[in-house]
Amino acid sequence: MPDTVSPGLQALIAAPYPEGWNVIPPSASAWKALASQSSAAVAADIAAIRQRLNVSVEAGEIAGVRVFVVTPAEIAPGNRERLLLHVHGGGYVLYPGEAGAGEAMLMAGYAGFKVVSVDYRMAPDFPFPAALDDAMAVWRALVARNDPRRMAVFGTSAGGGLTLALMLRAKAEGVPLPAAIAPGSPWVDLTGDGDSVKANELVDNVLVSMSGWAGAAAKLYAGGRDLRDPLLSPIYGDFAGLPPAILTSGTRDLFLSDTVRAHRKLRQAGSEAVLQVFEGQSHAQFLFPFLPETEEAFREIGRFLDRHLLA
Amino acid sequence: MPDTVSPGLQALIAAPYPEGWNVIPPSASAWKALASQSSAAVAADIAAIRQRLNVSVEAGEIAGVRVFVVTPAEIAPGNRERLLLHVHGGGYVLYPGEAGAGEAMLMAGYAGFKVVSVDYRMAPDFPFPAALDDAMAVWRALVARNDPRRMAVFGTSAGGGLTLALMLRAKAEGVPLPAAIAPGSPWVDLTGDGDSVKANELVDNVLVSMSGWAGAAAKLYAGGRDLRDPLLSPIYGDFAGLPPAILTSGTRDLFLSDTVRAHRKLRQAGSEAVLQVFEGQSHAQFLFPFLPETEEAFREIGRFLDRHLLA
Repeated sequence: MPDTVSPGLQALIAAPYPEGWNVIPPSASAWKALASQSSAAVAADIAAIRQRLNVSVEAGEIAGVRVFVVTPAEIAPGNRERLLLHVHGGGYVLYPGEAGAGEAMLMAGYAGFKVVSVDYRMAPDFPFPAALDDAMAVWRALVARNDPRRMAVFGTSAGGGLTLALMLRAKAEGVPLPAAIAPGSPWVDLTGDGDSVKANELVDNVLVSMSGWAGAAAKLYAGGRDLRDPLLSPIYGDFAGLPPAILTSGTRDLFLSDTVRAHRKLRQAGSEAVLQVFEGQSHAQFLFPFLPETEEAFREIGRFLDRHLLA
Repeated sequence: MPDTVSPGLQALIAAPYPEGWNVIPPSASAWKALASQSSAAVAADIAAIRQRLNVSVEAGEIAGVRVFVVTPAEIAPGNRERLLLHVHGGGYVLYPGEAGAGEAMLMAGYAGFKVVSVDYRMAPDFPFPAALDDAMAVWRALVARNDPRRMAVFGTSAGGGLTLALMLRAKAEGVPLPAAIAPGSPWVDLTGDGDSVKANELVDNVLVSMSGWAGAAAKLYAGGRDLRDPLLSPIYGDFAGLPPAILTSGTRDLFLSDTVRAHRKLRQAGSEAVLQVFEGQSHAQFLFPFLPETEEAFREIGRFLDRHLLA
């Protein structure tokens, strides 16, 4: 356990592997039970974030897709015309309902933006491309009534992959792209390729290993498609013309390689892309409330978006 | 071995630990023999870099300190008034002579800058602060006849730590700072603290572990001083007012934590600081000729310097 991080993060680093990381649900109903459990497990955290960061959360529907609209108590003048789209993580199988909007609340609370979080349909009932269809439908609807130069898209893990897949799809369909994106530890390669996927196996105490539920979730989501399809694994797509991006990861992250590969590919394509990597963090631990590192990560992302979004 | 990197880098990743990584020289003369061996071991690489990148290398002396002046065959018009200072790596004990100037040649060749590389005095004969004294003497002399707004300082490993220590010392002594710095995998914490120093132990096949010669070199260099002295371990210093910085590391780097801790501390202090982390690389492998990743790293650093240095 390193002493180079906050006491709260030290406690997370010292924690055992999550129960069930290596259990692969044997049936569709077992996958759905796992999804329900995942949302129940974070319910107290979600309530605490909403309250402590003083954000309001309203369930709604946009283009037939369930969303949560997250609004900070006070929006800075420069952010009043700005709007963010959020797509949550959880391997395309976890965190249905308001549980998925926790990251949107952190962004609203720490960075002061209004956020629409997509409660997209998930596997096993709705494999690919349902999640992407839902995100795309909401993006199209938002872009029709907002200036994309005042907008950004973000999400972590599967939500980071979905953020990039959404960019590829919007580009292909001639829909405007946002002014910036913030993929956190983006799952850009569902094949399991990437050095840290092996080197950080059993070191990352959040995802632990692709041999557990997460690797199985990739196949469940893909529903038999080639995992190298760029809309599943955006690292195999064409990054030309993608918006400025800020990417976040941790030194123990199983997806550190996914993150740095995406970062380099964005830079190779000529996008402005910046990287922040947090000391000692396993996968997506910059989402854990209320570590000082979490606030630091979101304030940094907020500053990046502020620089790139039209006021 | 990941297939997400170039074939040349794959071969480096597949290589065994360097012979002698875990041998701690038992005497001053054994340390000096190790230093001579280290320079001999890279002599062929140094000659190849000089020839293939078409740079000229001239031995000289500035302020009584031995230097190598590295000049590219062609200097872009925008770079003609610019000058970089380079401080080499090698744990404050390795790469005396022209061997230390390899990174300066890569920078000159790939990024097109003229570079002065300091062949500073080293332990065991000359422990701290000899290396820093030498770097400081050269910096003072260069600043006296060049515009620091047209200058940058860079170096990797011990050279990255020395780059940051030089900034702290110049600040303390009222000497102008350069317009930018490029610390590569900077050894900012000689105490051995940092998550990756443990998590990447035996994963990094360049440094391997602080239990080998490198950890012993820290103590040899410090010569009995507190390893937390900011001029030895700049992470314990005050980063306020430091210039824009680009930091480079790899996912397997034993000093990934040193790098990201320095990055975050620079950001916390309000400096512009960007991070690039290369897939699968162990410590300082972005210095290995002639991988495509090496060229990419130096061109990226070159673009960053170009943005920050007055033409």
